[in-house]
This record gives sequence, C-alpha cells and structure tokens, in this order.
Amino acid sequence: MCGFVGMIGQPQASTALGIALQALQHRGQDATGIATFDAGRIHIHKDLGMVSAVFTPDALQRLRGSSGIGHVRYPTVGGGLREDSQPFWTRRPGVVMAHNGNVTNLPSIAAWLRKRSVHLQSSCDVEPILMVFAEALVEQRNYKDGDKNSPGGDYSPADVVAAVTEVFRQVRGAYTCVALMELEGRETLVAFRDPDGIRPGAFARGPGGAWMAASETVAFDALGFTREADLPPGRVVLLRAGEEPVILPASPVPDRPSRNCIFERIYFARPDSQMEDGFIYDIRWRMGQQLGEEWRRRGLSADVVIPVPDTSRPAAQAMAETLGLPFREGFIKNRYSGRTFIMPDAPTRDAALRVKLNVLPQFFEGKRVILVDDSVVRGTTVRRMTDLIRQVRPAEVHLAIFSPPVRNPCFYGIDMPSRDDLVAARLPEEAWAAAFGVDTVTFLSLDGLRSIAGRPICMACFDGDYPVPVSQEEESLIVADRRG
Amino acid sequence: MCGFVGMIGQPQASTALGIALQALQHRGQDATGIATFDAGRIHIHKDLGMVSAVFTPDALQRLRGSSGIGHVRYPTVGGGLREDSQPFWTRRPGVVMAHNGNVTNLPSIAAWLRKRSVHLQSSCDVEPILMVFAEALVEQRNYKDGDKNSPGGDYSPADVVAAVTEVFRQVRGAYTCVALMELEGRETLVAFRDPDGIRPGAFARGPGGAWMAASETVAFDALGFTREADLPPGRVVLLRAGEEPVILPASPVPDRPSRNCIFERIYFARPDSQMEDGFIYDIRWRMGQQLGEEWRRRGLSADVVIPVPDTSRPAAQAMAETLGLPFREGFIKNRYSGRTFIMPDAPTRDAALRVKLNVLPQFFEGKRVILVDDSVVRGTTVRRMTDLIRQVRPAEVHLAIFSPPVRNPCFYGIDMPSRDDLVAARLPEEAWAAAFGVDTVTFLSLDGLRSIAGRPICMACFDGDYPVPVSQEEESLIVADRRG
Amino acid sequence: MCGFVGMIGQPQASTALGIALQALQHRGQDATGIATFDAGRIHIHKDLGMVSAVFTPDALQRLRGSSGIGHVRYPTVGGGLREDSQPFWTRRPGVVMAHNGNVTNLPSIAAWLRKRSVHLQSSCDVEPILMVFAEALVEQRNYKDGDKNSPGGDYSPADVVAAVTEVFRQVRGAYTCVALMELEGRETLVAFRDPDGIRPGAFARGPGGAWMAASETVAFDALGFTREADLPPGRVVLLRAGEEPVILPASPVPDRPSRNCIFERIYFARPDSQMEDGFIYDIRWRMGQQLGEEWRRRGLSADVVIPVPDTSRPAAQAMAETLGLPFREGFIKNRYSGRTFIMPDAPTRDAALRVKLNVLPQFFEGKRVILVDDSVVRGTTVRRMTDLIRQVRPAEVHLAIFSPPVRNPCFYGIDMPSRDDLVAARLPEEAWAAAFGVDTVTFLSLDGLRSIAGRPICMACFDGDYPVPVSQEEESLIVADRRG
Amino acid sequence: MCGFVGMIGQPQASTALGIALQALQHRGQDATGIATFDAGRIHIHKDLGMVSAVFTPDALQRLRGSSGIGHVRYPTVGGGLREDSQPFWTRRPGVVMAHNGNVTNLPSIAAWLRKRSVHLQSSCDVEPILMVFAEALVEQRNYKDGDKNSPGGDYSPADVVAAVTEVFRQVRGAYTCVALMELEGRETLVAFRDPDGIRPGAFARGPGGAWMAASETVAFDALGFTREADLPPGRVVLLRAGEEPVILPASPVPDRPSRNCIFERIYFARPDSQMEDGFIYDIRWRMGQQLGEEWRRRGLSADVVIPVPDTSRPAAQAMAETLGLPFREGFIKNRYSGRTFIMPDAPTRDAALRVKLNVLPQFFEGKRVILVDDSVVRGTTVRRMTDLIRQVRPAEVHLAIFSPPVRNPCFYGIDMPSRDDLVAARLPEEAWAAAFGVDTVTFLSLDGLRSIAGRPICMACFDGDYPVPVSQEEESLIVADRRG
Repeated sequence: MCGFVGMIGQPQASTALGIALQALQHRGQDATGIATFDAGRIHIHKDLGMVSAVFTPDALQRLRGSSGIGHVRYPTVGGGLREDSQPFWTRRPGVVMAHNGNVTNLPSIAAWLRKRSVHLQSSCDVEPILMVFAEALVEQRNYKDGDKNSPGGDYSPADVVAAVTEVFRQVRGAYTCVALMELEGRETLVAFRDPDGIRPGAFARGPGGAWMAASETVAFDALGFTREADLPPGRVVLLRAGEEPVILPASPVPDRPSRNCIFERIYFARPDSQMEDGFIYDIRWRMGQQLGEEWRRRGLSADVVIPVPDTSRPAAQAMAETLGLPFREGFIKNRYSGRTFIMPDAPTRDAALRVKLNVLPQFFEGKRVILVDDSVVRGTTVRRMTDLIRQVRPAEVHLAIFSPPVRNPCFYGIDMPSRDDLVAARLPEEAWAAAFGVDTVTFLSLDGLRSIAGRPICMACFDGDYPVPVSQEEESLIVADRRG
Repeated sequence: MCGFVGMIGQPQASTALGIALQALQHRGQDATGIATFDAGRIHIHKDLGMVSAVFTPDALQRLRGSSGIGHVRYPTVGGGLREDSQPFWTRRPGVVMAHNGNVTNLPSIAAWLRKRSVHLQSSCDVEPILMVFAEALVEQRNYKDGDKNSPGGDYSPADVVAAVTEVFRQVRGAYTCVALMELEGRETLVAFRDPDGIRPGAFARGPGGAWMAASETVAFDALGFTREADLPPGRVVLLRAGEEPVILPASPVPDRPSRNCIFERIYFARPDSQMEDGFIYDIRWRMGQQLGEEWRRRGLSADVVIPVPDTSRPAAQAMAETLGLPFREGFIKNRYSGRTFIMPDAPTRDAALRVKLNVLPQFFEGKRVILVDDSVVRGTTVRRMTDLIRQVRPAEVHLAIFSPPVRNPCFYGIDMPSRDDLVAARLPEEAWAAAFGVDTVTFLSLDGLRSIAGRPICMACFDGDYPVPVSQEEESLIVADRRG
Repeated sequence: MCGFVGMIGQPQASTALGIALQALQHRGQDATGIATFDAGRIHIHKDLGMVSAVFTPDALQRLRGSSGIGHVRYPTVGGGLREDSQPFWTRRPGVVMAHNGNVTNLPSIAAWLRKRSVHLQSSCDVEPILMVFAEALVEQRNYKDGDKNSPGGDYSPADVVAAVTEVFRQVRGAYTCVALMELEGRETLVAFRDPDGIRPGAFARGPGGAWMAASETVAFDALGFTREADLPPGRVVLLRAGEEPVILPASPVPDRPSRNCIFERIYFARPDSQMEDGFIYDIRWRMGQQLGEEWRRRGLSADVVIPVPDTSRPAAQAMAETLGLPFREGFIKNRYSGRTFIMPDAPTRDAALRVKLNVLPQFFEGKRVILVDDSVVRGTTVRRMTDLIRQVRPAEVHLAIFSPPVRNPCFYGIDMPSRDDLVAARLPEEAWAAAFGVDTVTFLSLDGLRSIAGRPICMACFDGDYPVPVSQEEESLIVADRRG
Repeated sequence: MCGFVGMIGQPQASTALGIALQALQHRGQDATGIATFDAGRIHIHKDLGMVSAVFTPDALQRLRGSSGIGHVRYPTVGGGLREDSQPFWTRRPGVVMAHNGNVTNLPSIAAWLRKRSVHLQSSCDVEPILMVFAEALVEQRNYKDGDKNSPGGDYSPADVVAAVTEVFRQVRGAYTCVALMELEGRETLVAFRDPDGIRPGAFARGPGGAWMAASETVAFDALGFTREADLPPGRVVLLRAGEEPVILPASPVPDRPSRNCIFERIYFARPDSQMEDGFIYDIRWRMGQQLGEEWRRRGLSADVVIPVPDTSRPAAQAMAETLGLPFREGFIKNRYSGRTFIMPDAPTRDAALRVKLNVLPQFFEGKRVILVDDSVVRGTTVRRMTDLIRQVRPAEVHLAIFSPPVRNPCFYGIDMPSRDDLVAARLPEEAWAAAFGVDTVTFLSLDGLRSIAGRPICMACFDGDYPVPVSQEEESLIVADRRG
C-alpha cells in the first residue's frame, strides 16, 4: 500500500521528510527512501528498514537541498530488495518519483517501453510509470526545438501535462504519484492521481512558502502544514516555493466521478487522517453507530462491547454508546510488535497471537460480549482470537464487523489474498458463525455502508464493482507477484 | 527497570523464553539476552536491540536445553554496551543470573569483592550480586568437605539458602533475581526477591511439569502458564521440572511487611499484569474513580474526558464514567515510535512530539476538556502537550493526574531525574497550573492513593518515606550513573 | 586508478566477473560492483569493500545473465560513498558503463549537460561520460525516425560510433570505458579508449564464443581467455557472443601516436599483466638492468642488493645480476595489511611501518647495501624505511630508484600529491641523499627510461610533457577533489 | 594454530596489543580479541574477523589499562562462533588467558571439572585450561587461611606455581599460555609452556620497564621490544612492569629435552621470526641448500629454479645458488586473497587457483624447471598447479620439496587431514611423480632434515614419533572436532 511525501521550499528538507515519513510509517515498514534536489544534483538514500533506523543524522545531512520526496514501502510486491525501494530517479531529464498504488497492466507497459530500448532495473511499479513519464517528456523537447545543436534544455508546465497524459494513457490501475523536477529553471513538485482517485493523496501549505503533498494528512500535522485539498483525480498539481498551486487537467478520458477506496477508511489509514469525507476516526465512528442500529434490529442482547485493538476502538465505542452498553478494553495489545517465534509444540500454538494480544479475563468471564472488529478476510485470525477468549469462559460471544463480508480480491494496492482464500466467498453464510467460533456474527450491510459514504466509492472487495477492469491474465500476474 | 524470565522443564526453552521476553519488552528495549543450560554446558546469546531482532531462528536454535533465563534491559544504567547486558554467568560453579532492580550500595560490595581478588567485567548491577552469590556458595563447598582431593562438587538447597542470605546481607537496594544452576545434580531455577519486595516478580506452573518465574505475569499468559504466586520477599524459591516449588526463608533480618513499588502500578507495568493487589488495569481504574470523586469535590465542570494514551486510558474512562461525562480519544498515538529527528528551525520545535502524538481537533475545539495523565515528573512533556492542544482552541483545559506530585527521586530502579529537576519540588503549588499551561490541575491525593492500595507500599517518590535508606554519597553515585 | 572488466557470451557471467575482479583487486580495494543484462532487465550490485566480501554467493546468483561489466574502485576521488561506485547505468536506453581513468574538464561537461536538464547523482567521473554517451545516442534515434509514434527503438553500430565521437569531443582526460547495451536487438559489449591511450585496456577471446575486455590482462588469465589485443585508442570495439570483434574509428581528431602511462609499468600494474610493450615483469627487469648499468657507471660498490617488496623485486634481481652481487630479501612484508593503529607515544612512531615491513637484520648488519625501490614521490616513506634499517647498523646504504624523480603531478588518474609535496620538486638534487637518510641516491635517467620504452609514452610526472593540457582552474579542481 | 600476545607496563596497552596482533595475523584470520586489566576491572573485546576490522579506534580506547593479552584464531576448531574466541576470563579470581596449541585429552579434563560443578560455555581449548588453573588457585587460597571470614584475597607466586603444576598434571597436548592476574597486589603477566615445548613462545624486554610474551618474535619487532629468550618448557615465567623476570619450575614430571615443532619452521611461522634455532628465514635457506645437495646427488639437470610463493622463496633461492641455476619468479601471487567463487562449468575449474597464483609463461616455456614447494600433504594443490603450468609448455617439470613426505597426522595444533587423506600414506612412492603430474619428485630426506635441526624436534608428521601419545579415542575426537 505504501506512503509517499513530497516537499518544496523547506530548508534542509530531508529532516522534515523524515518526520513526515514517520507519520506515514503505518503505510509501510519494509523499506524507506528520500531523494532531494540540490542545484542540479540528485541526492538519494534508501534502504530496507524503518524510517528511524535508515535515516541516521549523517544520512539526513548528506541529503542536502530544500526540496525532496520520500517513501515508505509495504512489503507485498516483488523480491523485497533494496533496489526495488522508492524513490526512483532518472537523470535525463532529472526527475525523482515515488508513488502509492498498484499498476494492473504491467505487461503492456513493458512492451511499449521495450520498443523504445528501455531497460528496467527493478520490479517496482513506479519504475515503468517514471519511464513512460520521462520518455513522453523527452519527446516533447525534441518536437519543440527540432535542432539537435540547441536541445532547449528546459521543460514547461505544458510538457508535464503532455507527459502525465501519456502516463494516464499507458498506465492502468490505482496510483497517486509525486515527482520532483525542474520546470522553466525552477524546482517544481509535480503530483498527480489516476482519474479514478482510488488511492488517497492530499497537499498542504506550509510556513514560509513551503508546500507538501502526501498520501495522508497526518504527514502535514507533525510539521504544522495546513491541508489545502485532496489531490484532484485526473489532474496535475504543480507546487513551487512561494507560489500558489497550479492545477491542470491531464486526463485523456472524460471526467468521471472518483471512486475512493473504502478499505483505507475501514482499516488502513490512520484515524487522525482527513480524506474527501472527513476524519477517518469520524467515519469509523459512524460505521459503529450504523452497525449498532443494524445489530439492535436483529433483536440480540449483550452485556459489554469489546473492541479488537487498535483499529476498532472508535467504531466499538460508538456501537456501545448507540446500544447503551458499557465499553471495555478486554484486549491489551503489545506495543512492541515484531517477528513471531515459531514454537515447536502444538499446545502453545496460540502463543504467537497471545504475545501480541492479551486478554483481560474480568471483562469476558460469564458475560455476553460483543466483539467488534473491522473486517474478516481469511477468517483465520478471528478464529484464533475466539479460541483464545473461550479460555476465559464468556457466556456468549457475538461478533460484530463494521464492514460487509470481503468477497472479491483487490487489484489496486490493498494486500488481500486470492479469491479462494476469502472465507466469505468460500463458505455459505449460515456456516460463518460456526467457522468463527461465535454465537452470532453481524456484518455491516452494503446499503448501510453506502449510506455512510454518501458518494461514489470503490468497494469492489465487497460488491465486485471494479472501477478499472482487470483481465484474467492481469489478475493472475498480480496474484503471482503478491505471493513472490 | 528491566525485565527477567526464568524457565525450567520446557522443551527447547529458548523459543519459549523469546516469547516471554517479547511479552516483557515494555520493561526494556535497549538490550536482551538468553542463557540456557544443556548437560553441563552454558549457551548464551545477548546483544543490543529488541527481542525480535536479537533472537534470529539460528540464535534460538543454538541455545539448546530445556531450562534457561532471559532478560530485557532498560537503558538507564552504565555505558549501554553489549558487555553490560544480562544474563551474567559464572562457570565455577555453573550459574547464570538475571535481575530487575537497582543496587544502592555498590561501593561497599566492590570493596568486599576486591578483598577476595574478584575482578568485575561490566558496570551491570547483577554482576556483583552474582559474585557475592558464587563466593558464598564456594565457601559452603569448601567448609563442607575439607578435603581438596574430593571437592564434593555438588551443592544442596541449604548451600543456596546460605548464599542468598549472604546476598541479602551484602546487597542493599531493590532487586528480584532469577538464577539457574545445578543442585544435587539436577537443574534448578532459583528465584529470590529482596526483603522489601519493592520490584515485582511472580512464578507460574506450566504444562508438563514446567515452571516459570518472571517480572510480570504477562510473560505467563502468552505461553499458557498459570500464575502460582508472587515471589515472597526475603525468601528463596527453588523450581525443578516436575516437582512442587520449595520455598525457604533466607532473610538475615526479621520479616517486615513488603513495600511494593507504586510506580509499577501507575505507569510502568502492563495493564494486563497481575500483582499482589490484582490487575494493573483494575488498579488504574480505581485510581481514575478516586480521581473523579476528588475532582467532583472541587466543584469544577467540563464537557469531555480525554486520556493521554496509552497508560491513562483505563483511569480516564473510569473518571469519565464517575463524572457522567463522555470519554473521547482526542490523541492518536503513532504505533511506530523511534528515534526523534532534530529539526533545524524553531517553528517546528513541536514536530518531534506531534509525530508521536497527534490531535483530533474535533474533540477539543470550543470544549471544556479534562486531560487525564498518569504522573508529572519534570513537567516539560505536559507543557509541550498543552501547547499543542491550545492550537485547536479548547474553551478550557483541566489537567487531572491519577497520582500525587512526584517530589523525591527513586533509588530503586525507576528512571527519575534528580531532585532539582522535579517540577513539584521546584515550584510552589500555586504556580503549577500556569507552568503546565492549563486552567486547573488536580493531582490524586496521597490519602486517596493509600486508600486504593490498602496495604504497605513504597511511594517514596510521593511521600519521601524510603524503605531502604540511602546515604548522601550513595545518592550521588546513583544519580551520576544514571546520567552517564 | 580503478579497474574494469566487461564480458559477453559467458554463462552466468557474474561469477566469472567476480573472479576477473579479484584478479584486478590491486587496482582498487575501496568499492566494487557488477551489473548484468538479462532479457531487457538490468541487475546491479555494488557496495563498499573488497570483491570477496561484496559478492556473496547470493548476490552473484541474483545477477543473472550471460553478459555484464564489473569495477573495482581506488579510493582517491569524491566522498567514498556507495552511490559513487561503479558501474553506472541508464535505462533510456538501457546502458551500463564502467571506466578507468580521470576526466580533466568536468566543469565544461557539467555545463553542457545542465543545458539539457540532466541532473547528476554522484561525484563519479563515469556518470558524466555515460550521460554524454546516452544523450548523443538518443539524438541519433530521434533524427533517424522523425515520427514519435514509432520511436524505432533500436540502435545501430553507426549510432554508437556517433555517440562515442561525441564523448571524445566533450570529455578530455584519460579514460578507458566499457559499456553493455543492445544494438540491433543483440547484447553488445562496447569498449573505447581515449585517443591518447593513456590508461590501459585490452580484450580477449574466451571459450564458446565469449569475449572479455579489461583494464589488465591478468583478468583474462584466471578464466582461460586469450589476449587478442590492446584496445586501440580513439576507436570503438564492439564485441558480441560468437562473432568476430568489430573495430570502428570514432576519434573526432586526426590520429596521433598513443602515449601510454609509464607509471602503470613502474608501479601500478601487476607484473604478470601484458601491455603494448610486453609483460610488466619484463619491463621492470629491463629497468633494473638499465639502473644497474647506470649505477655501475657512477663507480660505486656494494655487497648486496635488497628490494623493497613487492613491486621492486624483479628490478632489484635484474640489477643484482647485472652487477654480479647477491640478491637478498632483507624485508619481510606482512601479507595481511590493514588499517594502521595510531600509537600514543613518539618512541613507537615507526611501529605502523614496521608491522607492514619487517627487517631481517642479518642482511644489513655491517654490509654495504643497495636498496632498490620503484619511485620516490613525497620522500617520507623512504625516510621512515632508512631510519628503520639504520637500527640494524648497515655499513652503507645506497638508494637506487628504477624511475626518474617525480617532479610534476598526474592529472590522468595516478594518485599523486600536488606539486608542493613532491620532494624532487621541493629540494635541490644535492639535498636528496641527506633527506632520504642514505649515503647515495641513484635515479634511473630520463634517457635510460626512454630507451627502455622505445616508443611514445606519457611520462609527464617525470618530464612535464602532458599529452592532454590542463588549465590552471582544472588543475585546482583535480587537486581539491583528490583531497576531499 | 593461533597466536597470542601478552603485555605489561605499556601505557594504553590495547593499541600496542593491536599492533602486535597484526604482526601475528598470519597465525589466524578467523577471530581476534584483546583483554586488559584496569584497577580491578577487566575490559574485553573480541569478535570474528581480522585485527584491523575488529579493533576500531573506539574499541581500543575502551580497553583501558597498561597490561593486557590478545589473540588471533585459526579457524580449525569448533563451531567458529564469537563465544569460542579468545581471550577467556574468570572473575573469581580475576584472570584472563589466551593460548596457542591443542589439548589432546579434553574428555578426561571435562570429567575432572564436572565433578567440581564447573560448566563450560564454549568449545575452545583454553577454557578448560583456565578452569583447571583457577580451581587449583582457589584451593591454594582456602588451604592457606582456613578462616572463611578473612579470605586473604591475594595470591603469591607459589600459588601460581601450584596452579600451573596442576595444569601440567591434568592437561595433555601442546600449548603455550599467557595469563594476566594480580599477585601480591600487583598486575603480573604469567606465561607457561607445556613440558615438551612443542608450540613456540618467547618473551621480550620493552622500553620503560615493559614486558611482552608472544607466539612469535615478529610481535616484538614492530614495537621495538628486544627478544629475551624463548619461554622455557615446563616452567612459569612471571613478568611485572619494571622488574626482572622470575622463572620458576612447575613441571610435575622430570625435565626432558623439548621437542619444538618442525612445521612451524617449514611453513607456518613468519620468515622474520626467531626461534630456538635462529631465524626461520635462515632455517628455510639451509633446507634449500640441503635439498640442492640431495637433488644434485640424483644426477638430474635443469634450467631454472622457480619457487611457489611466498613460503618457498628463501629455500628456492638457496637451492638455485647451490646448483648454480637462475632463480626466477615464475608465479605471481595475488596480494588480495579472499573467498573462492565457485564456477558453474568444468573448463574453468582452475580459475579459483589461477586467480590466486598466476603464471609468467616466459619462465616455463621450453624450459626444464625445478618447482620448489614447502610440503605435500593431500597432493591436490600441487597437482592443480602442475596442470596449470603444463599449459605454458615447459620441457620438464621437477618437483623439489624442502621437507620429507607427510605420512602421519598432527595432534598438536597443525591443521592436517586425517591419515587417509595424506597422499604419501595413500600411494606408493613410485606413484608419486605421476600423481603430481611431474617428471621427477624429490623430497628432503629425514636425515637431511635432522642434520639441519641439530637438536631434538617434533617431526611426528614425518617420522611418526609422537612426543605426547594420543589414544585411539582421543585421535577420533580430534579429527571429528577439526571437521566440525
């Protein structure tokens, strides 16, 4: 899923980029990188690991310059090598780029590039996007001057619009990109988002004429930047130090309503991030309220509402208040996650879960509990959790999920298993409660979810309505890549 | 503060020790180590870093044997070198040892050891404890047989009691220790706790005749062990695979009531750990209730109760329920902590805090908020936090602390600054609200806290009543060591 | 000084490249890298360190493909960062490149590139060479087809000749380059050497239609390749698996005699490498013979000839045989070099030297010794060595150097200090023996050296006759860079 | 085989120890360590790797104190873990120890220690030696005072003699040890060598009252220390800053002539080291002279003598001068050794050898060459080398070895294969030339070798006369350990 940030007009930008990336660390803990511009020189530092480990004071200091971009990588795609980590760069012309999303038609782009003698060096999605962008840009230059002895050198906003249009034409999928380059001799932060606007992205105004663009608004908060707007789908946003933003249309297709990802709202984004429809916290609260209403309509009753931390806390509290039930923290999450040690013997099989999520027995024993979680994908985690709480003898366990059943895979960057591994696709509805080891299970209804969203949204994982169609062959490739 | 665990009768104990240490990771993230016994061989692996990073599958596999001890280190003491990390060991006789606590009379122990030609190799407290223990043990052997050609070799429970008694005689301070050795030819886990019982420790019964001792009971939960009891102060607990525990008196002084550390309950221990007085979660809940009562008595009023995560959550919710006010999560904590990047310019001075703790403005703006936190030590953190929330324009800010003001340093292992840096010692009471940048400040009363404890407790940091007196010279040394 | 190797038509080329780089390790121990081509993908691995440390079996295995290039870096230039290490690559079109040499007009190339919006990412010489090459290549493509919808994609040998010609036009200095790219749809190894042929380079025929190009022929020996010829200055050599080499003229200036570097012969190259004028071993032998003749003409006499290992051994033995004197190894070199430890006290100041070069006293004590060394640059090393041997009381010490005095700096890649630090430029000739702490000193004469070479050669460091003139400003830059 | 050094009375001893270890680096490149004493504290730093990599300036600086010991490890024994590397230490009493050699009766020592409740922590030979030493020392203390309340604390030279005597009684094999401890309140360097004196060791007088003991005298040269004597077998040497050495008898058996290892002289020690019988260089020269005489007696003739570098150079030159033949360096050794890359295809099987040892064809082609090497063990290396030189078409190849055929394994620390892998034991004499791929082969005769030694020597590998007998079971263990 990944996270990006771009910044311009910020003295010693690398340190601010490092802080912004720490705010986005939940979007990827696998690898991270920063690239800066410094008087015609590109500085870059990237490595496997967390932001605070990779960016030593020494490394940040070498990343000179007042503009740059950064990235955190989620470990789903490719071989997990350092060479696959972002940002990527090209020197001719000088561009650095990072993105968040997933490209669905890699083979057709590869063919287009191969005909132009382009070689790739990684298995990262952003590399072909950058290659299409740079090829299209260079073609602008050559057709503009027509005289090889005076190559013109410089690019204009119109050239960038032409290049992004070519990207939108060649590259299918869901992606929000940020790039840094020189336009008309000035450093310019270029941000664009695919016409469907599936993956998030926003930009913000900072002190002293600085600008930032990022996957989530939490990156702005840490540095005192003020959110300006979400990045508009199908458009290019040009940001320069001390100037107002320039927003230009670049979509080669007629505008259509954007379809933001529902899973960012349910699970992936931080609760303190703002998107098109407000704070994620408030969206989850409304989901909990709606779930409470729907649960009440089933005529069930319970003693206590318990969230599965951390994501479910606002929805669970909203549900508890809606139902007039006490809200209690029955699970304590270990703040220090890490690699799971494999145990040699079966009896301690649940140690791996228990070390991450411990149970406070006094809130379960003899009680009818509503267990609130965000979603059910494979169904294995929820089962291991209910096995765990059965040991502290609750009277009844009611599972309440503040999203509908996941029935379809995601091709746009959310890490989900293939269709065969989705429990809601594999088992009939009447088998779910037994499979999850609970007395009842309640999912939020599709209509309930739509009423909360109040606008077009991508919920293909729930309803199968994909904004960007994917061929059978492309689906196989995406699944294979994820397993690799 | 540190955390320890010991285990016996557990097949391939190292993996189980690794899991138990992950459960104790909150007690120290600086360094970690495991030592196991394996047919007369000691295996040991320790290094700087977190449990999941230090214990690779390869490292765990080399730590063969069905008994062992482990440790996580809190980075207050010494130079932070690998050589200072626990467990420590001696080969003659074969003993490995780890502890949790702080020794207050190091110079007098060093003199005792120096006279016996003992050289130390680290600046870790447990090394002199182990040296006293081993010297005392060897003296038992020699006086028992009197014939140098048949050194007897083996030790008995009585020898261990004599050795622990010598430790209690020589070593002052607060410490809970776990050691592994052979007694009468069998591997035996030896646990002992200083006569005042300041630092915590408990032991548990596991499947298949296994036993565990650890700093906190959360280490038992992950592995399905059942808590047996707290370690009794001034006594030795001997644990052997498949046998019932043997508890022997070892204190050289008459029994006195133990004085457990109040700060473990307020701040340091995990909420899901059980101590002498129940679950930490429940203790904090009662502190919140009591604080609510005391706050109500002041005749103040407010709109919402907001916890400073994560420690304050149960107390804040209890206070909110006591006062009949809504409880809202106005702060979002970044799950991925890490090194703080220093920013070059003043305007972004609060970025370091904000990246760790972000604000949800909707719960502050125009509201009269009660901010609940566990304690105030220097007063600088609370001030930076109230500066932050002033930016989202609350109507009033009332600070409520579920412990009394810290007025005295701790000499028993809690990392507190020297007397001069304690804000409650430095400023008169009427200056506190202004210093913290709030409208009112309410601390839990000493009497309120005592009524919750309901038994003798060490709250020297609040009331100055130290169970183990410390000379002026010893205090200087402890402070200097902590700064080093 | 650095070393490069390129290979084509070699199954799993990376392993063979690793072996070849080990054979060239004497040319640079600071950093190393390998890049391979694999069906339109570039694989690359580079890092600081020695060949055997950087190229783990895992790393070699990931470098798939039957063609590639490799490099070892000598640590004189730039900040010594990983990003400055070779090979360098560009994706549009796909080219990887490495070189050996030094560019003298970096500022003028940078200006040329800046006008074309090119950003650099390192401070390595080969990056601007590659950028000029790739820019020139792309200009060929565009002017050839003229239709942006069919970019033609492919390049021809004529395009490469045009691109290398542009490199020769823009880039001044001494450089031998090897590049890998696709021409007419086939992988092609491209090697070229500046028109003066200062730095060495050769190519070789391997088993199964494979080809190799490298800085020195020792790279061929290890792999059973047969030296074909030296790379011709001012030309492009195109090597393809299973085909005969194609050699094309590319120099934009009229052919002039090449001027190979004399210092490669005296000191830098391995004795078992062959260059234009034969084996380095044999050249050094002839230098020793000539030095013997010249020494004899001075009418001096001695008891024994002792080489300073390892470089001087052949010359010293030749001199001994010429003079009819015994040849003895009076110095033992420590095979395990490494970082020098700084000693705190003055008396042991020479420990750093002595640990690298120990003395066998029996060959010095009471003897009149001729000490044979390759060259004198600063004069400090020779002085520390003669101080050392004075401790074992030789009767007389005669220093014999098988090259003339170094009086001028090198701008073409040999690491020499600035003019002010050259002892032969700083002190009058009659002061040399005293400065070196010897009874007499004999340098090889300029004429003697010329008679051995028997053809044009660059010996600017001795006679000041620079084949590629360097402006005052360029000289300052080169010196500053070297100190950095 | 390993190397040790001990030093006392040297300001900031760690740096000097680091330099001395660099001089001994040829004795082991696998791991290294230094321990120092500093006012009752032991500082220690050890790790896998070369001296210059392990001892960073930071590490050396932390090793405070004016006395210490150091070690370099040869990678034959045990698992090659960091925990197995020397020096080893014990705190009660404070002793650090390192050694060079091989213990042959580990099981019987382990049984002795087990009865005393001693646990071992490594698989390094020196650990049981140190345990026996410390146990024996502590028994001295106890029997001296008899009053446990005044443990006396201090040890005397007589106590050390008693402890070393116990070591000589318990520990069989070949070992030279150096230890650092306090005697009568003063830091004392204790060196002792087993009664047979198989492994080397010497001590030296330094400036300012300092003393050093080391495996080889080259450690003295680098630091300007003057060799005093070899360590006397069966005795203890006590060295203290500013005092004359004290040498005390400690052997529990009657004195017998020492039997120094012949293989140190032939192959292992540095040529510039001095042992009982002079400089290694001179011993090898005499071996070459003797070999020349014996070769001449066979009535063979040749054109040139070529050494296999580096060990054979002095013997080959001596042989050449004896025979009046030219001496030429037909092999060039790569100064940068390292890991061997495995090639996937058979034709390049000899690349691994060739990259380490290249051939100068002009000294072989059409010539009758005498190839001089130090020894033949398995016979595989010599065969790969003669295959290599056959490619450059010599007229005849005569192999001359300046030692007798190796027919028996070594149990005293020289890394040799088991009996079955020794070619001279496996094949009849008349098959050797064909097996080695040469025209003739000449080994130095046993009598010739004895005449050079001129005194008792251990040449069990040649003649089977073992000074310390080894049982069948012990032999199996030593062989298994070496393979592990």
